[in-house]
Amino acid sequence: MTTPTRRDLANAIRFLAMDAVEAAKSGHPGMPMGMADIAEVLWNDFLSHNPGNPHWFNRDRFVLSNGHGSMLIYALLHLSGYDLPIEQLKRFRQLHSKTAGHPEYGHTPGVETTTGPLGQGFANAVGMALAEKILAQRFNRPGFDVVDHNTWVFMGDGCLMEGISHEVASLAGTWGLGKLIAFWDDNRISIDGDTAGWFTDDTAARFEAYGWQVIRKVDGHDPQELLQAIRTAKAETGKPTLICCRTVIGYGAPTKCGKESCHGAPLGKDEIAATREAMGWPHEAFTIPAAVATGWDARTAGAERERRWNALFDNYAGAHPEAAAELRRRIAGELPANFAEAAQAYAAKLQQDGPVVASRKASQMALEAFGPLLPELIGGSADLAHSNLTLWKGSRSVTSDDAAANYVHYGVREFGMSAISNGIALHGGFIPYDATFLVFSDYARNALRMSALIPTRAIHVFTHDSIGLGEDGPTHQPVEHLASLRYIPNNDVWRPCDAVESAVSWQAAIERRGGPSCLVFSRQNLAHQPRSDEQLADIARGGYVLSDPADASFDLILLATGSEVELAMEAMRRLAGEGIKARVVSMPSTDVFDRQPLEWREGVLPSWCRKRVAVEAGVTDYWRKYVGLDGAVIGIDTFGASAPADQLYKHFGITVEAVVDAAKSLR
Amino acid sequence: MTTPTRRDLANAIRFLAMDAVEAAKSGHPGMPMGMADIAEVLWNDFLSHNPGNPHWFNRDRFVLSNGHGSMLIYALLHLSGYDLPIEQLKRFRQLHSKTAGHPEYGHTPGVETTTGPLGQGFANAVGMALAEKILAQRFNRPGFDVVDHNTWVFMGDGCLMEGISHEVASLAGTWGLGKLIAFWDDNRISIDGDTAGWFTDDTAARFEAYGWQVIRKVDGHDPQELLQAIRTAKAETGKPTLICCRTVIGYGAPTKCGKESCHGAPLGKDEIAATREAMGWPHEAFTIPAAVATGWDARTAGAERERRWNALFDNYAGAHPEAAAELRRRIAGELPANFAEAAQAYAAKLQQDGPVVASRKASQMALEAFGPLLPELIGGSADLAHSNLTLWKGSRSVTSDDAAANYVHYGVREFGMSAISNGIALHGGFIPYDATFLVFSDYARNALRMSALIPTRAIHVFTHDSIGLGEDGPTHQPVEHLASLRYIPNNDVWRPCDAVESAVSWQAAIERRGGPSCLVFSRQNLAHQPRSDEQLADIARGGYVLSDPADASFDLILLATGSEVELAMEAMRRLAGEGIKARVVSMPSTDVFDRQPLEWREGVLPSWCRKRVAVEAGVTDYWRKYVGLDGAVIGIDTFGASAPADQLYKHFGITVEAVVDAAKSLR
Repeated sequence: MTTPTRRDLANAIRFLAMDAVEAAKSGHPGMPMGMADIAEVLWNDFLSHNPGNPHWFNRDRFVLSNGHGSMLIYALLHLSGYDLPIEQLKRFRQLHSKTAGHPEYGHTPGVETTTGPLGQGFANAVGMALAEKILAQRFNRPGFDVVDHNTWVFMGDGCLMEGISHEVASLAGTWGLGKLIAFWDDNRISIDGDTAGWFTDDTAARFEAYGWQVIRKVDGHDPQELLQAIRTAKAETGKPTLICCRTVIGYGAPTKCGKESCHGAPLGKDEIAATREAMGWPHEAFTIPAAVATGWDARTAGAERERRWNALFDNYAGAHPEAAAELRRRIAGELPANFAEAAQAYAAKLQQDGPVVASRKASQMALEAFGPLLPELIGGSADLAHSNLTLWKGSRSVTSDDAAANYVHYGVREFGMSAISNGIALHGGFIPYDATFLVFSDYARNALRMSALIPTRAIHVFTHDSIGLGEDGPTHQPVEHLASLRYIPNNDVWRPCDAVESAVSWQAAIERRGGPSCLVFSRQNLAHQPRSDEQLADIARGGYVLSDPADASFDLILLATGSEVELAMEAMRRLAGEGIKARVVSMPSTDVFDRQPLEWREGVLPSWCRKRVAVEAGVTDYWRKYVGLDGAVIGIDTFGASAPADQLYKHFGITVEAVVDAAKSLR
Repeated sequence: MTTPTRRDLANAIRFLAMDAVEAAKSGHPGMPMGMADIAEVLWNDFLSHNPGNPHWFNRDRFVLSNGHGSMLIYALLHLSGYDLPIEQLKRFRQLHSKTAGHPEYGHTPGVETTTGPLGQGFANAVGMALAEKILAQRFNRPGFDVVDHNTWVFMGDGCLMEGISHEVASLAGTWGLGKLIAFWDDNRISIDGDTAGWFTDDTAARFEAYGWQVIRKVDGHDPQELLQAIRTAKAETGKPTLICCRTVIGYGAPTKCGKESCHGAPLGKDEIAATREAMGWPHEAFTIPAAVATGWDARTAGAERERRWNALFDNYAGAHPEAAAELRRRIAGELPANFAEAAQAYAAKLQQDGPVVASRKASQMALEAFGPLLPELIGGSADLAHSNLTLWKGSRSVTSDDAAANYVHYGVREFGMSAISNGIALHGGFIPYDATFLVFSDYARNALRMSALIPTRAIHVFTHDSIGLGEDGPTHQPVEHLASLRYIPNNDVWRPCDAVESAVSWQAAIERRGGPSCLVFSRQNLAHQPRSDEQLADIARGGYVLSDPADASFDLILLATGSEVELAMEAMRRLAGEGIKARVVSMPSTDVFDRQPLEWREGVLPSWCRKRVAVEAGVTDYWRKYVGLDGAVIGIDTFGASAPADQLYKHFGITVEAVVDAAKSLR
């Protein structure tokens, strides 16, 4: 072999995938073998990247939405020259290797997002393409297209069956994301077998109905057809493109190709040997002939691409120094230097003013205060803007040409919204926030989990946070949601008790770089709580002493969050009238509190005091972690009901009286 | 007014909606006003129902998927003669009224399912139509179409934006549900305003791509066009039909019609007065003129319809007595008389045989054992049949003409699947089970919640229940899911420790009539646990003593579920070797255990013993409700990793050693 054919190049992917899955005794060889030819053409002829610097900002984004085919991307990264040596491929799916079962962002250089939960990679890609579009709109100048790249996504039948594909394809069409190009691996096989029994959509017609350019019936094993299709896709700048590639799953395996048996299990020694024979690939496992390796090596070309962009950026910086500095800041994800100070000053002013508002309103006030400082904030709501109060004076729709475009009308698409947020955050240049009612966090749940797992700096706003929303009834009243969201690892949930805590929670969410935050707000008005300067600073600890008896000694502790803090405060006053001294702890974020040093936690909840009552309008068992078996919890463990909020609180027994009675009943 | 016009009849809906929302000071008048003419034609000319008996089995099912327009259905039920007097409409959205903010099944006669969370009513309707189709296939005989009704669904732009609409419309098309007829309220307004900015799909083309008959551009305010469209819909028996109705939201309100301001808030006194004027409706609030009332009254016709069906059924029973008896049993939701005994005998045999299998395999064995007894079981999986092990020998695809059709290949559509299950259960005649990986319960989460809220007798199977699934890594490894599912009110979660507990959990789920069960199974093999007859019977209590020291005295308690029970048992043995006496409690269902009398719970977890260690491969805080602040919990509070299962258990410290150490560290 001197000059390898395209097929030779593609076969390198196939054999790496087969051999790695075989070595791991688990994995998915079928998809990499089926999409190898597509990947080869895309990566060798079109993909603008630099293997030497996976963080080069203007690189094309490549997303493997059908993430179970992870060996495809590991093979591509290895072959093109990323820091992913062959030893890592030999350790596919092993502990501490860089080649996990599904691609994980931050774990493997060149992996743009964590995929596996089907449909979400596609949604992330839509978010990336949106981010590219509006960042370009904001920062490019005549002659200086400093933000200018494609977003490519591979997806299978599974991604297209998932509902989220509908939500995000619809939005991508509405937004006219011309630089988004998706490849459908149309192999007509899913885990249960031939998809004819459960996937009969005319997918091409469906995507045309979303306003996409659709290129039909491309032979996914014919490089010439693929080249032509990708050229056509790139030529269309006003619409996203779907390239429908007819492929054979497990292409090349003599007896297993085209069957579900090659989807999710090793091919087996004999089939692999037969494939080597059939495909004319005599090389040992994990061995790539030099000519093939050379044919793939993209390091020199990649370095040159980045060098040219750096030169362009330098000229841009000369011509537009402010824009360049601002873009650099946003790429780095650094906040404006004055942000923390301004946010603290804002909270201090609120503490003085003491507004009595719903915390959703306080959230909007925080947006009004912080928004002008943070052009990187990009907001949105799933068709509840006027309920979630996510619009502020500086909001400009992303469907406009406004350079300050920063607001997304997501429509009624909670899951798509949150997964798009993840994509926007991953792209860089933005801090996204999205919003719906707390109960509908359910619809977005796995995207919220992915937000924490990837992790992304995304802010998820949830209003109407309890039975306190009133008349809309149990379908709209969250009960188990606060606890459930707190249990997602690396997810910071905040439920502030007044306007001040609301502002602090926004500041914390904006400043947090290591993961997402869920900000949970009330529909109804909340009382303002008095605080010393020290207490004001304590809010950021997640849990703190809001009130102690004058002599700082107490018999019991009342813990509360959000709208129930005022109940706890009133209960404290009534107990004081009966000579019972209670401390009140406000716990806006149990996640943040639990991360504090033991000293802090012990200071707030001293071990000697086992008389503890927690009150929160949600499931009670969650609070046993703080009150143990000796304490009491006032909350709700059933579904809610439809009625005015004040009547519901009484009906479900979440009242000052209940807190007082519980406190007095503790022995 | 002597003979009311169709418009007069429709206006009765409009004014009831306006007046009730005004009285409640909250609600959604716009949709009922916009869909009033459609509802009037459908209910007065086509709907086959009997207001005197909302449970008549062969009635048409009518689903209001855009449930926020609840006053539409309350008006329809009231006007047509259901037991929903005008006093109830006056108490719209008040505590204990029968007119909750969103329609609730079981709360209001004639409401077929609980709606509000958008898109799910549509999915329920698909499930109902599927149930009707395969029940007819099973029970109808020549000349005896005893199962023969339509399913009608109203839906708005919101339902169509939701991803679940894609999943279930695709399936309805694949299944050729010719008796499913959906009306799209195409009013081009959602809460955020004109949908042009976020909903640009060609919905008609989209549904054609799913294989639906689509009737375009029907004037939703023209009874003649509607009559014709519905006739065309009914004439097509091989495909579901979407009727695209152009409507004006808030039709009739002079200044607010066509605007989002009439969507979700009272119109206000002045606008209502102006509407009365404009529409020529001089009647007082909540007053329906006698002629209009008569025009709506469907009681006589409804009683006659049911009488004719009863006569048909009597003749059917004469000709086909066995089928009739079986259909009666299934309509009543009663299990075969021998089921409980057979199930117990099966569990007893397993206890003797002691198979060491993965609990997902044990689940399949239970299906093999129970399936032949239960023709009402209808199963399925979201494209994971061979991983979830949901197929058994008697499984026959619902896409076949087989009279015994009982298996659904849902494709990769978890949310749609679970919501369709809810619809199947609501229709009656079946006990549905569905399945996916536990981590992807997230995708279906709100349908699981609705399953518990409605409630439906649905069984949700979740396999691959922990890091024990191994190499697929953190995207596929549930951590917070067990706790999160348990927190859904009225949801029974089971995580059995061996084949015996697996069989008992299936029996419990099948026998439970008041709500859903989630059955959570392992990918990996689990040891068999020895039990006395008494212990075998105790499993159904949800939590029980699996092992006590010979003298029945103990120093501490080890609690565990599922795959961790064998760790607890081994830890008990090692502790015994060191002279420390431990009780082992197996807790397959905390939900069921928590419902037991105090006496039972105290017998298993006596208050005097605070030395308690819980072990479960999931978030630890959940277990504080049993071990309090003094106990210890072995589990995992971070995301997992990709590696073989045994290495992961070691890596994350879920080991016998960890349990032993924790037990010894308790003071």
